[in-house]
Amino acid sequence: MSRVYNFSAGPAVLPEEVLREAAAEMSDYKGSGMSVMEMSHRSQVFEDIINNAEKDLRELLEIPDNYKVLFLQGGASQQFAMIPMNLMKNKVADYIVTGQWSKKAYQEAQKYGKANKIASSEDKTFSYIPDCSDLPISEDADYVYICENNTIYGTKFKTLPNTKGKTLVADISSCFLSEPMDVTKYGILFGGVQKNIGPAGMVIAIIREDLISAEVLPGTPTMLTYKVHDDAKSLYNTPNCYCIYMCGKVFRWLKDMGGLKAMKDLNEKKAAILYDYLDQSKLFRGTVVKENRSLMNVPFVTGSSELDAKFVKEAKAAGFENLKGHRSVGGMRASIYNAMPLEGVEKLTAFMKKFEEENL
Amino acid sequence: MSRVYNFSAGPAVLPEEVLREAAAEMSDYKGSGMSVMEMSHRSQVFEDIINNAEKDLRELLEIPDNYKVLFLQGGASQQFAMIPMNLMKNKVADYIVTGQWSKKAYQEAQKYGKANKIASSEDKTFSYIPDCSDLPISEDADYVYICENNTIYGTKFKTLPNTKGKTLVADISSCFLSEPMDVTKYGILFGGVQKNIGPAGMVIAIIREDLISAEVLPGTPTMLTYKVHDDAKSLYNTPNCYCIYMCGKVFRWLKDMGGLKAMKDLNEKKAAILYDYLDQSKLFRGTVVKENRSLMNVPFVTGSSELDAKFVKEAKAAGFENLKGHRSVGGMRASIYNAMPLEGVEKLTAFMKKFEEENL
Repeated sequence: MSRVYNFSAGPAVLPEEVLREAAAEMSDYKGSGMSVMEMSHRSQVFEDIINNAEKDLRELLEIPDNYKVLFLQGGASQQFAMIPMNLMKNKVADYIVTGQWSKKAYQEAQKYGKANKIASSEDKTFSYIPDCSDLPISEDADYVYICENNTIYGTKFKTLPNTKGKTLVADISSCFLSEPMDVTKYGILFGGVQKNIGPAGMVIAIIREDLISAEVLPGTPTMLTYKVHDDAKSLYNTPNCYCIYMCGKVFRWLKDMGGLKAMKDLNEKKAAILYDYLDQSKLFRGTVVKENRSLMNVPFVTGSSELDAKFVKEAKAAGFENLKGHRSVGGMRASIYNAMPLEGVEKLTAFMKKFEEENL
Repeated sequence: MSRVYNFSAGPAVLPEEVLREAAAEMSDYKGSGMSVMEMSHRSQVFEDIINNAEKDLRELLEIPDNYKVLFLQGGASQQFAMIPMNLMKNKVADYIVTGQWSKKAYQEAQKYGKANKIASSEDKTFSYIPDCSDLPISEDADYVYICENNTIYGTKFKTLPNTKGKTLVADISSCFLSEPMDVTKYGILFGGVQKNIGPAGMVIAIIREDLISAEVLPGTPTMLTYKVHDDAKSLYNTPNCYCIYMCGKVFRWLKDMGGLKAMKDLNEKKAAILYDYLDQSKLFRGTVVKENRSLMNVPFVTGSSELDAKFVKEAKAAGFENLKGHRSVGGMRASIYNAMPLEGVEKLTAFMKKFEEENL
C-alpha cells in the first residue's frame, strides 16, 4: 500500500489509523457479527456508537449543556435553507459575504425573508475578511450569518463580528475541530463533516436550545425542522450511520492527539512552514491578506498559469495530490486539515523549493 | 470472524463479498493512494465510480433513456416533501395509504396542497393491499402515490393501481432491486438504499425527465429541487460518496448473481420456504393476507406475547438477529433481502420448527 499526500479541500484526508480500524471492523464490529453498515439504527450497539460520538464531540469542543448536537443529512447547502426556515421569525437576517458559500447562503435566504448583505469582500476576489467591528446590523435581524473559514479563498475570521447582541450563525465546515472555539458566542454552528472530520454525507449542527422551536416558516418540510431531529435525538429517520461511526473514530483520534489545543499548535506549526516559505519565495506567493490567513486552506500562485499547471502536474507525479486551486481563484491550494501529517507539509514545501530553483 | 444471520428491516445485511472488497480497498482504492472517503467528488477517479454505479443500475432495472437517476441525501422522508414541492402543479395529489410510510407521505403532502386519501388498509392494521382497480382518482391529480412494499406490515402491491392515466409515484425502498420492474409504468420511483442496496444515508430517485422542471412551489429549497440535482448529475454539492461507492459494488454483485430475474427466483424460493412453513405451523402464523405477501419482509406471530419474546430471545442466542417485529404489529419479522443467503432462511425455518416442537 502506498498512500499519497492528499491536499484535497474536501472530501479530504482522514487519519490512517482510523481507516485501518474501520477496515478491520468492516465485517464484524466488535463481535456483533455485523458491519456497522448493516446495523439497525435503533439497536443498542448503534445507540452506543452515536451516543459516544456525541459525548466525545461535546468534550472536544466543550459544548455547554444548553446546546444540542444534531447529525443531519443534506450537507451545508441544505442548512442554507434550514437556517432561515427555522430562525426567520422577523423575516430579516444579515449576511456577511466572504466567499462562494456565504454568498450561496445569502441567496438562498432571500427565498424566505429579507436577507441583507451587510458586508462583503467580493471587490477583491474574497481575498480578505472585512472589518466587522461596527456593521449596520438590522434592528430586527433574526441572526447574523458568517462562513468562518473560507475553503476556496483561504481566509478566516480571526475575530468574530460584533453582532450587537444578535444571534451569530456560522458555517464552520472547513475549520471544524481545527482549534478550540468558544461555543457560547454562537447561536448555531454547523459544518459539513467531509473536510476535517469524516466521509461526506453529513452535517453536524450545534444549536443553542432556545433557537429550536416548533414555530417554523409555513411549508418547512418535516425533515428541515430542527425540532423534529432534536426531539428524536438525530434518529427521526435513518441517519448516515456509517458516517456517524467514522466521525466518532476521528473524535477519539483527536482526543488521543491531545484535543483541540494540541491540534491548534500542530496546525499553526504546519501552516507556518508553508506561509513562511511563501513569504520569502521569489516564485510563489500567497493570495490572501496576511492577517486573515486560514490555517486550513492555503492558496498560492506563481503568477503564470503555465507554471501553475506545470507545478500541479509535477507535484502529482511526486505523490502530492489535489493541489489545483479552485477555478474561481486559479493557481494552487493546499488544504492541510487535521489529518494531514506535519511530514506532508514539510515534504510539499521542500518540493516547492526544488521547483522554485528549477523554474525561476 | 463469526457473522450472524441478520434479519434487520434496515439498515440490513449486505453481501459478505462486498464488505470484504470494501475493507481491502479502505486505505488505497485501486492504486489511487486514497480511501474513497478521502477523494474529491470532482476527481476523475470518483466520477468513474458514480458513472459506473449509474450505468450498472440502469442495466439492472432496464431504465429507459428518458428517465434520470439521482443520488440524493435525506432519506425517503425527505422525498415525502420533495415530491409535492416539485410535482404539485395543480396542488392536488391522491394517496393510497397502506402503512406507516405512505401515511407519513400523505400527511407531509398536506402542507403543499390537497392530498386525498383515496384508499387505505388501516382498518385491518395494514395487513392487506386494497383493491386499486377502480379508485376515485381526482381529475386534476398531479400524481397518485403508493408505497409499493410495506416494510413494517409485510405487504406488497402485486398489481399496480389503475391511475386512470395519472402519473404514478412509488416508494420502493424495501423492494428495490428485489425483482425486475417495468420502469415505464412510473413517473417517479424512489427508495432509501439502506434496505436492499447499501449503507444508510442515500435515496435513489428515478424520474421521467418531463417531470423535472424549474417550476417548483414557492419556497422550495434549492437542495429539494430535482432540476438542480439533475443539472449537476447528482454533484450539485458533495454527495454521500462512500454510499455511492458501496451501492455500485452491490450493483456489480447483483449482475454477477445473474441480474434481477435471477434474484426474483432466489427471493421467491427463500420466501416460499418461510411462508410454506408458516402455513402449516401449529404455533406460528403469518399476519398478512396471502395474495399480498411481501417477498422481502415476513411478519409472523405465535399469538402469545410471552412466547414471541421467548422466541426472539432464543433465536438471538442461536445467531438469528433482529427478528423482533415492529412495535405497531408486535410478534416477529424476518426481513430477507437480496443479501440474505438461502441458507439463512433454511436455518431460521429449521430453528422455528424446533422451537415449535419444544413449545407447542
